[in-house]
Amino acid sequence: MHTREITVYLTTDIKACTAREEQIFRLRNAFPDFNVTLCASVEDFITHVHNADYAVSWEFKKEWYAGAPFLHAVFTPSAGREWIEPDPAGRTPTIFGRFHGKIMRETLLAMMLYFNRRVFDTLQNQSDRKWERDAYSDTHSLTRQTVLIIGYGNIGRECAKVLKALGAKVIGVKRDLSKGTNDNIADSVITFDNIIPALREADHVVLALPGGRETDGMINRTHLENMKKTAYIYNMGRGNCIGEEDIVWAVTYSKIAGFWLDVFDKEPLPLTSKLWRFPNVIITPHSSAFNAEYLDLYFDELIQIIKYLETKRGA
Amino acid sequence: MHTREITVYLTTDIKACTAREEQIFRLRNAFPDFNVTLCASVEDFITHVHNADYAVSWEFKKEWYAGAPFLHAVFTPSAGREWIEPDPAGRTPTIFGRFHGKIMRETLLAMMLYFNRRVFDTLQNQSDRKWERDAYSDTHSLTRQTVLIIGYGNIGRECAKVLKALGAKVIGVKRDLSKGTNDNIADSVITFDNIIPALREADHVVLALPGGRETDGMINRTHLENMKKTAYIYNMGRGNCIGEEDIVWAVTYSKIAGFWLDVFDKEPLPLTSKLWRFPNVIITPHSSAFNAEYLDLYFDELIQIIKYLETKRGA
Repeated sequence: MHTREITVYLTTDIKACTAREEQIFRLRNAFPDFNVTLCASVEDFITHVHNADYAVSWEFKKEWYAGAPFLHAVFTPSAGREWIEPDPAGRTPTIFGRFHGKIMRETLLAMMLYFNRRVFDTLQNQSDRKWERDAYSDTHSLTRQTVLIIGYGNIGRECAKVLKALGAKVIGVKRDLSKGTNDNIADSVITFDNIIPALREADHVVLALPGGRETDGMINRTHLENMKKTAYIYNMGRGNCIGEEDIVWAVTYSKIAGFWLDVFDKEPLPLTSKLWRFPNVIITPHSSAFNAEYLDLYFDELIQIIKYLETKRGA
Repeated sequence: MHTREITVYLTTDIKACTAREEQIFRLRNAFPDFNVTLCASVEDFITHVHNADYAVSWEFKKEWYAGAPFLHAVFTPSAGREWIEPDPAGRTPTIFGRFHGKIMRETLLAMMLYFNRRVFDTLQNQSDRKWERDAYSDTHSLTRQTVLIIGYGNIGRECAKVLKALGAKVIGVKRDLSKGTNDNIADSVITFDNIIPALREADHVVLALPGGRETDGMINRTHLENMKKTAYIYNMGRGNCIGEEDIVWAVTYSKIAGFWLDVFDKEPLPLTSKLWRFPNVIITPHSSAFNAEYLDLYFDELIQIIKYLETKRGA
């Protein structure tokens, strides 16, 4: 008889993304009928996955499915579609992480408030020992500002919740409006066709778009030309949706006030990139969702979903 | 007959704190029966205040009250008690601004998220062109943190609202608990006598205390010794509540992780102060409430209160 098995392979060079014993312990406690294995290498994972009912991994190659007859679902903490190849037989679903927004909303706010409160100037004035109160006379609060969130999914909505709590006006941009234009969080939800008037109004534009051909170069110079010169763009989706040359052009000609970029077309961002050296372009290394509680939040979600799937299988 | 008069003297070297014509225009529109005067100098103000029903000013000397027989109230945008001397006759009340929290909560969040998301390291890594993802593995979200707000008045409660929206646990510290220990915002409200266990638990400690003898040196080395080494203090009340030497001691011996200081015992902070040069002490020039909308928010409040007082007088 097949021994039921959950195989976990979450080992990376980033501590936040690497499963710890206490997290595996939680999984064992939640599912006492299962054998829970924590794999240390990809070879180890491939061996164990032959017997797995559930696999939890950062990557999955399409050729691995054939050798895994019991596999009921592949789980990944990632919100991105790039690292799990779909089952060619169409039998095994992939279940992506949905918890990222809880972390990313704070990273986004950190950057918005860094720009809004001119923290760059604060640090400069402190270094010069300058007591410069009037510098804050031209700052603005989110209370009187408009935030446009392009790519209004799980992550965008989580950001919208805290932005609304801070009093901002929030406009979401979605591909599919079949569920209506009101989600009870944002002030309105529109499609990409209607983006120009919204861009003209926005003080902050958040890009939370998925990668892939459909979003390639989605934001171009026409969009940048239609923004306020005082506005900022925050890209925490994927790097393909706006070209590096267009970003450099916008900063060089002061089309907008600045960028926070967490994602890039090529990662790591090459040392030769022009982006590193602009004071109003803040670079982070595709880390907007990382913190110490990353996998704790993920295991909360994972346990809930496996319990749900088990109930369904039992029924 | 006395012509009814509102005399405004809000002229400073800070743009955010200086009344603009459009704000005076709003006051005139709201109170068509009043003569509204915008004074350009203190001499001008002293002359006009003789006839004023309401005076709106950053400062008021006690000797000015005697020459102002019609004066019904003195208004000031300030939340601090230092610049308006009370009426020696006890006849004219001072009405202080209560709108500051709406701006200060964002300044506080800017600083908390700056520390929480290690923006200092972000800027350093960018300057070194280093792609350092693991640096964020040790960061934390407010969702899993506790914030202690010492001095839990209007401003503290406004901060508590947004911190709760971000998922933090919030403990308020008040002098007077006669209204109970639950204000429907914070998780709990305690008195200063019970502060040590709360300090041991807090990841962020916000000081929003008024100045004066009662708060002088209120936070001392015993308090700092009882904090987490990973915790931060944010002082946006008055500089007298914690001594500069104690701050330098705490940073030098890594008793806590850092400070944001907006207020100081002596302002401007002297060039010779040791505080300027610590990378984990952020200095701002008593500016946490300043932004472009400062007096707009104040005039919203001012118009409401004068309307209320007029109704009461008419009744």
